Amino acid sequence: MKLKFKNVEGAVIAAQGFRTAGVFCDIKRLGTGKGSNKGPKRDLTLIVSDVPCSVAGMFTTNQICAAPVKVCVSRVAKGIAQAVVVNSGNANACTGKQGMKDALAMVRLTEKTLGLKDGYALVGSTGRIGVTMPMEQVNSGIVAVAPLLGNSADHAAQAVEAIMTSDTRPKQIAIEFKLGGKTVRLGGMCKGAGMIQPGMSATGARPAALPAGLHATMLGFITTDAAIEAKVLQLALREAVAHSFNRITVDGDMSTNDTVLVLANGLAGNATIKSAKHKDFATFAAALQHACLELAKMIVRDGEGVHRVVTVRVAGAKSVGDADAAARAIANSALVKTSWHGGDPNWGRIIDALGYSAATIVENKVDIGYSTPGSRKVLWSLRRGQPTKATFKELCAATAPKEFDLHIRLNLGKGEALMYAADLTEAYVDYNKGDVTDPTTLGG
Amino acid sequence: MKLKFKNVEGAVIAAQGFRTAGVFCDIKRLGTGKGSNKGPKRDLTLIVSDVPCSVAGMFTTNQICAAPVKVCVSRVAKGIAQAVVVNSGNANACTGKQGMKDALAMVRLTEKTLGLKDGYALVGSTGRIGVTMPMEQVNSGIVAVAPLLGNSADHAAQAVEAIMTSDTRPKQIAIEFKLGGKTVRLGGMCKGAGMIQPGMSATGARPAALPAGLHATMLGFITTDAAIEAKVLQLALREAVAHSFNRITVDGDMSTNDTVLVLANGLAGNATIKSAKHKDFATFAAALQHACLELAKMIVRDGEGVHRVVTVRVAGAKSVGDADAAARAIANSALVKTSWHGGDPNWGRIIDALGYSAATIVENKVDIGYSTPGSRKVLWSLRRGQPTKATFKELCAATAPKEFDLHIRLNLGKGEALMYAADLTEAYVDYNKGDVTDPTTLGG
Repeated sequence: MKLKFKNVEGAVIAAQGFRTAGVFCDIKRLGTGKGSNKGPKRDLTLIVSDVPCSVAGMFTTNQICAAPVKVCVSRVAKGIAQAVVVNSGNANACTGKQGMKDALAMVRLTEKTLGLKDGYALVGSTGRIGVTMPMEQVNSGIVAVAPLLGNSADHAAQAVEAIMTSDTRPKQIAIEFKLGGKTVRLGGMCKGAGMIQPGMSATGARPAALPAGLHATMLGFITTDAAIEAKVLQLALREAVAHSFNRITVDGDMSTNDTVLVLANGLAGNATIKSAKHKDFATFAAALQHACLELAKMIVRDGEGVHRVVTVRVAGAKSVGDADAAARAIANSALVKTSWHGGDPNWGRIIDALGYSAATIVENKVDIGYSTPGSRKVLWSLRRGQPTKATFKELCAATAPKEFDLHIRLNLGKGEALMYAADLTEAYVDYNKGDVTDPTTLGG
Repeated sequence: MKLKFKNVEGAVIAAQGFRTAGVFCDIKRLGTGKGSNKGPKRDLTLIVSDVPCSVAGMFTTNQICAAPVKVCVSRVAKGIAQAVVVNSGNANACTGKQGMKDALAMVRLTEKTLGLKDGYALVGSTGRIGVTMPMEQVNSGIVAVAPLLGNSADHAAQAVEAIMTSDTRPKQIAIEFKLGGKTVRLGGMCKGAGMIQPGMSATGARPAALPAGLHATMLGFITTDAAIEAKVLQLALREAVAHSFNRITVDGDMSTNDTVLVLANGLAGNATIKSAKHKDFATFAAALQHACLELAKMIVRDGEGVHRVVTVRVAGAKSVGDADAAARAIANSALVKTSWHGGDPNWGRIIDALGYSAATIVENKVDIGYSTPGSRKVLWSLRRGQPTKATFKELCAATAPKEFDLHIRLNLGKGEALMYAADLTEAYVDYNKGDVTDPTTLGG
């Protein structure tokens, strides 16, 4: 289904009945010891609905799972929520029992401050791993932000700033569409930049089907005024994440904190979507997936030190699992990624990565080519394992743009997969090596 | 068994009856188009024994396997060889039928020029993938090098120079030891630098037990005057490689050309080792493994752009497979490797990588610590998932040296594994991005 959505302003408060704000409460400074952290200062935000919402979530499948993720997994399972408190500067990961106490203290103070029912607040955290949360600051932040909540574009800008870490720009979207004659809005924001290769599931449990090698913190918060039951919302989110956030990689490292939450408050007044068979389900699901995909691509484009974005499109694999393994091997190969940085159409490194991937590859069946994003006009460098007559200059021209598509055909079956991938640059290394004499430069 | 070996001069011609030489025949220049390639100029070498040798080999398990590897796999299976021809500057990989013709032409011309029996020559190639071999130059090189063969230290230096690509220094070793009262020598040379995470097997076939994520060309050539039958030599080599070349990673990319060959000509006059139960087998095997391990470590230390070398020691895993998966996840994590470059003891990134590895991890059982190489005096940063009282300054001091050991205890079982790993630096990125306006700067 190809649907058109109207873009609107307001991001995470574009839908009716949502308010937000963001403050600086000193978590970023304290997260690493001294001085000012990189990036913007705001470090705590609340997203609040006027009424209780259906809620769905997808969470990191990393076995080392942050306390806020654990809190969300158990609360989202109940299907109802009304607010999310999010901080940057500290991931509250690997913080043991104290971390769980702190995450629970955050949701409880949020509920108390906003006058919500017990269990109606969720929590997200991003930042350095292994540092106990500075709860005095966090608590003062929650109390300080509550009276500031509003639904202007400026409020949305405060919120997205507060979730940024190494992000260089805000990532937000909002769209408007019709459900059964009613105007519905869906908006959201996310952050990413490093430690990015999400592999999320609904419970944080690792599905057997997930590639063993799966590997930022990415946080995504989506709100809508659509009326949809929580179980159906979860179905839509699972599918949307499978085709968006779970298809991106910056550095191949899967975070301890990856989280996507959707809150649907029903204020649009559409007939409630109670099953995947409902006449409006497909439209809603498509809208959600569109928003997730646009947000996911923003994460790759703004990945740490990223200069080029490459969409790796694998087709003709023996199975979908093989296609996924092939696409991830290419998307995470240090040699392939550095060649992209150099604008070098080095198909030798690409076929090498295919060869060591878990996918079945037959050398004399492999096609490798390049196109502009989304185009079917492919310049092939390799056909059936043989170099084509495309010249080095022509191939360089195809890999020179800031964004291009890489087409792989294995010609062994019908398995397809794609990955939104990034190059590997000196800037990524420089950012992530940090400077131990100034711990504020050290990332998550 | 802990054995002492006496280091001797001569590397690949230290053992009786071996000769070598190296020449420049223009393969490096032609491999990439124009100008001079990086690194030393010599690009072709022969290693020749006065008499036929028992031979053993281990080869890349990459499904995209270079023509010289295919030729060696079938010839080594016969157990007898007398010479090896090796070129740098062109990998002869992904070169189709022409590549196989060229690899066979190389061994046949070597046999003819040296007056050897059919099938007695082997071949190794390293360099850019996907470019047809410049056979006019290769042929002139083989003919030119044959009359230059000798067994001085200078001859060995020529040989090792001729196999280097992005290597900044030669890698060679020779040792002397006793087998049944006879003095035996074993020497060798290797090259590496980039596209380094070998996963070699005796036939190039991928064993089910090999981690799916396994990913330079590394070439290793070892000679000895020990008398040992080919099948027993193969057993010793398989074990030696499992504990040396297959335990290193620079960038996680497994090459199409990884090859280790051992030639044993028997001129030392020891009682021939005909089985693994022979009284001298353990001594010989220990000598071979010592040489392989020293050579493998030289590859990591001279890896492309490498500033720090880290030995990742995982213990207490549920299984050896789990220990291997855990060690490789850490050793290949972009975020862990950049933190090593920065001297940042970022155990958060380490436990994150453990968490997304295929190994079973329980957060509150994980220990992470640092020591000087080989020392048992470990400074623990994490015990049972909880940060210790070690200060950031103390941990920084532990990760500041050019080489250190990283100790991981999962405390779930008895599985152990180690990986010799490298940091990820701006220099690696700069080298591998190359410059498409000067194709001579583009690596393999």
